[in-house]
Amino acid sequence: MRDHRLQVEEVPTPEPGSGQVLVRIRACGICGSDLHFFHHAEDMVRRAEELGAPVDELKRGLRCGLVLGHEFVAEVVDFGPETQRRLTRGDRVCSMPFVLKGGVPMLLGSNPETPGAYAEYMVLSESLLLKTPEETPDEAAAWTEPVGIAVHAVNRAALQPNDIAVVLGCGPIGLAITAVLRRRGVRTIIASDLSPRRRELVGVVGADQVVDGRLESAVLIAAAKAAASGGQVVVFENTGASGVLGRVVLEAPQGARVVVTGIAPGEEPILPMLAVSKELRLDFVIYYTAAEFAEALELVSNWRPVTTGKVGLDGVEAAFAALSDPERHAKILIEPWRDGGLSTS
Amino acid sequence: MRDHRLQVEEVPTPEPGSGQVLVRIRACGICGSDLHFFHHAEDMVRRAEELGAPVDELKRGLRCGLVLGHEFVAEVVDFGPETQRRLTRGDRVCSMPFVLKGGVPMLLGSNPETPGAYAEYMVLSESLLLKTPEETPDEAAAWTEPVGIAVHAVNRAALQPNDIAVVLGCGPIGLAITAVLRRRGVRTIIASDLSPRRRELVGVVGADQVVDGRLESAVLIAAAKAAASGGQVVVFENTGASGVLGRVVLEAPQGARVVVTGIAPGEEPILPMLAVSKELRLDFVIYYTAAEFAEALELVSNWRPVTTGKVGLDGVEAAFAALSDPERHAKILIEPWRDGGLSTS
Repeated sequence: MRDHRLQVEEVPTPEPGSGQVLVRIRACGICGSDLHFFHHAEDMVRRAEELGAPVDELKRGLRCGLVLGHEFVAEVVDFGPETQRRLTRGDRVCSMPFVLKGGVPMLLGSNPETPGAYAEYMVLSESLLLKTPEETPDEAAAWTEPVGIAVHAVNRAALQPNDIAVVLGCGPIGLAITAVLRRRGVRTIIASDLSPRRRELVGVVGADQVVDGRLESAVLIAAAKAAASGGQVVVFENTGASGVLGRVVLEAPQGARVVVTGIAPGEEPILPMLAVSKELRLDFVIYYTAAEFAEALELVSNWRPVTTGKVGLDGVEAAFAALSDPERHAKILIEPWRDGGLSTS
Repeated sequence: MRDHRLQVEEVPTPEPGSGQVLVRIRACGICGSDLHFFHHAEDMVRRAEELGAPVDELKRGLRCGLVLGHEFVAEVVDFGPETQRRLTRGDRVCSMPFVLKGGVPMLLGSNPETPGAYAEYMVLSESLLLKTPEETPDEAAAWTEPVGIAVHAVNRAALQPNDIAVVLGCGPIGLAITAVLRRRGVRTIIASDLSPRRRELVGVVGADQVVDGRLESAVLIAAAKAAASGGQVVVFENTGASGVLGRVVLEAPQGARVVVTGIAPGEEPILPMLAVSKELRLDFVIYYTAAEFAEALELVSNWRPVTTGKVGLDGVEAAFAALSDPERHAKILIEPWRDGGLSTS
């Protein structure tokens, strides 16, 4: 990513340093945050700067060019010095999207020193590698990272047996949350999206009831069911759309818990009077623990992920454009060894 | 309370119904919510109506007149029919501020059928009565209700040993939260208020460090201490002042939990981008469980509450006026058997 474009360039194969491993990428998902960063990098830097966050590295990255990509499965190609070598060449691996530099985790793709997985090769920290089980296809393993976020979001919600889950926004995170909820045995999952295609996908991964967010409020439907069943409502707000959080606070019933994964671009007004009187809880989440990431890798082993397309490195820019239409795609995997254009799964 | 005034009127002594007990009020605290309701009743009704809440009872109450008061200690005078009579006449009691009508809890003071404790006598549900321990003076027992809210708020925060507590706003709820935190063994409590008098009071009940909210940010001080101690920051936002919640989201460090007891009058803008990236949790609280209320009654037994004044029924309107100045008062108790004007403790 350089000068607001995605470009394919030949660069030297990276050299694994101390404690590092060289891997070949087998598949890497395109994350919504990559799209957002591609379209709004300058805005994000400016906002971060206003809030006093350190942005020098990021600015340098935007000037020099960044290699994005943090949802990957790869295979071990070579070992750097001072490695344990528990794994062997050819083993398939996943990793949390960090490389340790002097023990400090650096996010892959966030600066020129830690390039990400939109590439043929990359280096990873050996101590963070998880071996991908034999039976898990690459297409499923590449979902480990977003499913890790879903596992974390569901853990934070601490659902009880009679609770009713509401999934607002059925992009990759909403789909992954629905799949995790289904696997955890949650009895009632009501999902909502504006897009018919995404409503279809969330039905595939396990929603019991799917509603058109334009016509019906999933939160109000859940409130009625909760009143009947004696459970609480747990809302997962994944849209990040302006005004949704305030509406959730308005419509949520007594004792509802709201887990927010969606990042609205600006300020969101909420009514504390309502939140207090209903004793709401708002949990904002973004990451996962190492244990949650490992659980995600186990979870993806035996479910059919809802990948909607695949593309080689040459087609990534076209894939970014295609992802702007929710009727066409939800999750596209980059397979860097593949030639060219976007194919639909 | 009638026609925007507080008036003392002679009414017939109430008759305890089935399962009810007649009590004589020994002391009743003036709650901030009573003040707020007195000054903004019409606004509150209008807002509730806009949000679709049922307000007919409340409107009728405002027309007919309401007896406020829900922070009380009383003594048993007489028993209605179908009562168990575990207690005897003269026993001192506290109760959650509800009367059961056909098993449904009705808030004391919220309608003409369940008058509250700004009175000589009132009826309570026998099954909700808790006997006040011998050693607990009336002045302490009258704090049970706000301390119940504090116990609940502290429970929701689920503090861990190295966590650092921040108390924003040191009115009665902030004071009670500080006292509960101290009793729970929380190591570091940083409290903040704009009023010198309230900063003095919060030091008395157990804050380790007290800052002037105009000059220093208690949240930023706590963030620095948490970084040093390996704990998390837990903020109790009790001011309900406009803009405070947004500032807490801005200043809170990674992983902070925010417990909100303060009710800001209108919409409060928050930045989800920050809340998500720091994985904040916002817990909005208002009540307590029966167990928490009972724990509060035990807790108040051996601490010196920070009551700042006492008044008879004739002086309640003057007490309301005095409470508008945080330099003069934090908590005034009504003693209905006492003559006249406001005395300072």
